[in-house]
Amino acid sequence: MPRLRLALAQSNPMVGDLDGNAERILAAARDAHAAGADLLATGEMALTGYPIEDLAAQPSFLRASADAVPALAARLDAEGLGELIVIVGHPDGPFEPRLLGTSNAPTAIAQNCASVLHRGRVVARYAKHHLPNYSVFDEYRVFIPGDELLVMRIRGVDVALIICEDLWRDGGPVGRVLDAEAGLLIVINASPFERDKDEVRLPLVTRRAVESSTVVAYVNIVGGQDDLVFDGDSVVVDEQGRILARAPQFREHLLVVDVQADGAGDAAPVDAVRHVALEAGESGAAGALAPDVAELGDDREQLWNALVLGLRDYVEKNGFGSVVLGLSGGIDSAVCAAIAADAIGADRVHGVSMPSRYSSEGSRDDADELAERIGLHYSVEPIAELVAPVEAQLGLEGVAAENVQARIRGIILMAESNTHGHLVLTTGNKTELAVGYSTIYGDSAGGFAPIKDVPKTLVWELARWRNAHAELRGEVAPIPENSISKPPSAELRPDQTDQDTLPPYPLLDAILEQYVTHRQGRADIVAMGYDAETVDFVTRLVDRSEWKRRQGAIGPKISGMAFGRDRRLPITYRRLG
Amino acid sequence: MPRLRLALAQSNPMVGDLDGNAERILAAARDAHAAGADLLATGEMALTGYPIEDLAAQPSFLRASADAVPALAARLDAEGLGELIVIVGHPDGPFEPRLLGTSNAPTAIAQNCASVLHRGRVVARYAKHHLPNYSVFDEYRVFIPGDELLVMRIRGVDVALIICEDLWRDGGPVGRVLDAEAGLLIVINASPFERDKDEVRLPLVTRRAVESSTVVAYVNIVGGQDDLVFDGDSVVVDEQGRILARAPQFREHLLVVDVQADGAGDAAPVDAVRHVALEAGESGAAGALAPDVAELGDDREQLWNALVLGLRDYVEKNGFGSVVLGLSGGIDSAVCAAIAADAIGADRVHGVSMPSRYSSEGSRDDADELAERIGLHYSVEPIAELVAPVEAQLGLEGVAAENVQARIRGIILMAESNTHGHLVLTTGNKTELAVGYSTIYGDSAGGFAPIKDVPKTLVWELARWRNAHAELRGEVAPIPENSISKPPSAELRPDQTDQDTLPPYPLLDAILEQYVTHRQGRADIVAMGYDAETVDFVTRLVDRSEWKRRQGAIGPKISGMAFGRDRRLPITYRRLG
Repeated sequence: MPRLRLALAQSNPMVGDLDGNAERILAAARDAHAAGADLLATGEMALTGYPIEDLAAQPSFLRASADAVPALAARLDAEGLGELIVIVGHPDGPFEPRLLGTSNAPTAIAQNCASVLHRGRVVARYAKHHLPNYSVFDEYRVFIPGDELLVMRIRGVDVALIICEDLWRDGGPVGRVLDAEAGLLIVINASPFERDKDEVRLPLVTRRAVESSTVVAYVNIVGGQDDLVFDGDSVVVDEQGRILARAPQFREHLLVVDVQADGAGDAAPVDAVRHVALEAGESGAAGALAPDVAELGDDREQLWNALVLGLRDYVEKNGFGSVVLGLSGGIDSAVCAAIAADAIGADRVHGVSMPSRYSSEGSRDDADELAERIGLHYSVEPIAELVAPVEAQLGLEGVAAENVQARIRGIILMAESNTHGHLVLTTGNKTELAVGYSTIYGDSAGGFAPIKDVPKTLVWELARWRNAHAELRGEVAPIPENSISKPPSAELRPDQTDQDTLPPYPLLDAILEQYVTHRQGRADIVAMGYDAETVDFVTRLVDRSEWKRRQGAIGPKISGMAFGRDRRLPITYRRLG
Repeated sequence: MPRLRLALAQSNPMVGDLDGNAERILAAARDAHAAGADLLATGEMALTGYPIEDLAAQPSFLRASADAVPALAARLDAEGLGELIVIVGHPDGPFEPRLLGTSNAPTAIAQNCASVLHRGRVVARYAKHHLPNYSVFDEYRVFIPGDELLVMRIRGVDVALIICEDLWRDGGPVGRVLDAEAGLLIVINASPFERDKDEVRLPLVTRRAVESSTVVAYVNIVGGQDDLVFDGDSVVVDEQGRILARAPQFREHLLVVDVQADGAGDAAPVDAVRHVALEAGESGAAGALAPDVAELGDDREQLWNALVLGLRDYVEKNGFGSVVLGLSGGIDSAVCAAIAADAIGADRVHGVSMPSRYSSEGSRDDADELAERIGLHYSVEPIAELVAPVEAQLGLEGVAAENVQARIRGIILMAESNTHGHLVLTTGNKTELAVGYSTIYGDSAGGFAPIKDVPKTLVWELARWRNAHAELRGEVAPIPENSISKPPSAELRPDQTDQDTLPPYPLLDAILEQYVTHRQGRADIVAMGYDAETVDFVTRLVDRSEWKRRQGAIGPKISGMAFGRDRRLPITYRRLG
């Protein structure tokens, strides 16, 4: 059986950074060459980052991307890496617009491609067939689908090449891999992390390998991009579904593996398959490689690592030096501070305690203790003297007055940001955002929301996991026990607790998951056995919170990890009863 | 030649309001029947409103919509309107998901349909073929395309039925209309207003009529829906391209017209065309109808009316009683106040002057004069005493201190909103938003931005048009002359003017149009003859304003009319040099 030494570059590209991304690919090519690899595959759009959204409709961007591909091939060759076959993901175009649109319509003028570089030239190209347009994906909006499968004969092996969604759909190019009798299927991906994604992705890769009787090499990018986190988890599975190699999640890695694949046969020609034969010199692959199979962390560890990576990359890719956040002594700000310290180091994290006349002594102590445990920069700015003149001049009471406290805190954090250039973190969790339990321009102010897709009950679980994880390693647990165990309170009036207003969090989160995430209607949720009155109350809170947001602002649209986009709804609409 | 009396219901649906929208259709049917019409066509998705976004992925919503169609047919019949053939737009489904997606993927389970109601039953259905997925449209995301053209034989005329985008694409169903030898083509639409849209839309309708040798009846919805304004402008054009009838823009209207159409022939069967014959009783059409051909207003009048309708419907459809906005004496807030008064009446508009120590006497006078000219509710809240303690406690200077002034104003407006339930209007124009010349959580605070898609130079033009329009009608011009003629200033420090920081507005707007709206790169714009240094400065302002927004918040995503969505870009990305 012919053998190929295969390298998968699980790298972290930055959208639009053509030079930097090309450097990353070159570095991976040097390492792959040093390891004796015959073939290197990068992730989907590794040359431009992913997703490029409407940049795919900008001709100057597409021209620059298109020029970068042969330039990369030439550099590889000039560095003596020309014998290494390199598969690189990038957009191709501009082409003639696909659609007849209205006057200003930005029609698709690009394809989502993988180019094959060899001996200084671009020797083949594949264009993605299936353009996902659901959940976080909008590819059909900006790309033109391809219609031809590419099969390359390399060192006696027929190697088929597809891109991400092509693997998920029955039929299409993946269906032709079997007919073409390919020995190896390479899939390049930009596949974002979702909770339990590995329970779907690995079985799919395995199933395709067995169905097609083909080794499948799956390479994913890694890193945070706005509200997405790509987790890597690149994997190679043999034709019997056994894992040959697996890269770690949440960090860059070059996965090198020797693949024994069926030799090229002489399958009858298959429609819409293009065959390319690549000459190859002597292989540099020598000796046996040590097995490289990473273990995945458990659910909480994966989530924590995703949150850390997402925040880190948002900070670094935007060029921020530091972050600032308000520390109330509560669980949400404590968890956000711990994520931030894990992401960029406590020395770049600034916490501000902003006690009001309603803040308990305990809350202040909890904030102090958190700052000390984490070792972040810490300051205290009492707000009573700033709130009083506003309340007095405007004659405010009730919720309008409560909101002024939160908004003065927003002003303080923004002033710190404007003075020092910090990114402001807003600490709202998914539950609070869904039911509108926050103040627009107050505690919701900020550029990045680390836990905006984490329900309250999961915030507690993550806090406990992170503390236990520290204790296991003999480190200081970052989160004060009291912040975890005390009843949550907004502390905007005396003796307030969240449960004065909201149902118990476990029940609330369960109903929200059905209503918001699973798009179930009121009747469907009641039919599952939830108390009708509570369902009405919760769904009305969600609806009312949308009304409240409309009054002050739609959003604010804050970046922050989204493990699957829940819903994209019209702003103005009447719900069913 | 057979004659059909045709009624087009240019109505204003509200998204999700199934009962209310059905009542609107019933009212139109009563009027159409009274006018002797044989056939009534409503706009695209008239039963649910448009766009429904991810509501199309919610099974309970689709079930309720699907049930509303036969219910409407039954009510029409019960009211004695069963002989009237009624075409109604609505989503159909839920169907089996179209895609194999990942775990939580909201896959398409609906079609964008037109149902034909007659004698109490649903007698035919057409599903839209071409699902636009560019600019403001995301239909391919949520709908499954149809694949069959519908031709109905009614009173001896073959009537073909298509939906909106189907008309814009060559080939597809519109190509089959000629082959099917239809005498009348009905197109139901949800076609949003854009500047100069009538210069594209009417020629298209005319061209299709002539190409297909068919009378074309084009019916559009009207009204504001979040960022979109549907302008109506329904029209009927004969097979020689002559306008037979045209509805006014920006208001509801029932357009009734007698159509002489080619009688049904016996064309050879055409692939993918379904033929349905509808029995008809005696026509109620008697006598001759007066011609009903509306004149369009000029460019500025159309824009003003679009802005007024968009704001009115945002207020009304969200159930707000009133609006509040800050009045600085400048042109932007003056124009927003005038739009608001035209939209909902001055009695529902609350203006707050919030002078600081840098506000000139002239500015206060201009704000006073505006309030008096418009007759809105007016109050004055000086901010000096509220800003001083914040500046002092935090030791602020420079931009950080300037921003506190704007943010205290934001707190005041939000306190008014929280106390009285007003919708807060934010008065930023498109130029200011593009270059970041505003304060996050300050003057950008608000739920609706009436002029967010109006460049500064156009704001002045609209102000002059509105004043001249008032004078023509012998009314008080709403906008003080001084607000139009004085140099614009943010008044956050002594003697500040916009032109200290920004290039002259005509030049700035010209470059922004190329960079933001037309997606031209820096080199492309310089090649057009613009000064390279100015282009660099402006494009860098746009980039820096995005960075600035990332620091404080992404957005805020504020609703406000968008006459074509400019760009949807990744938040984090590195631009080309």
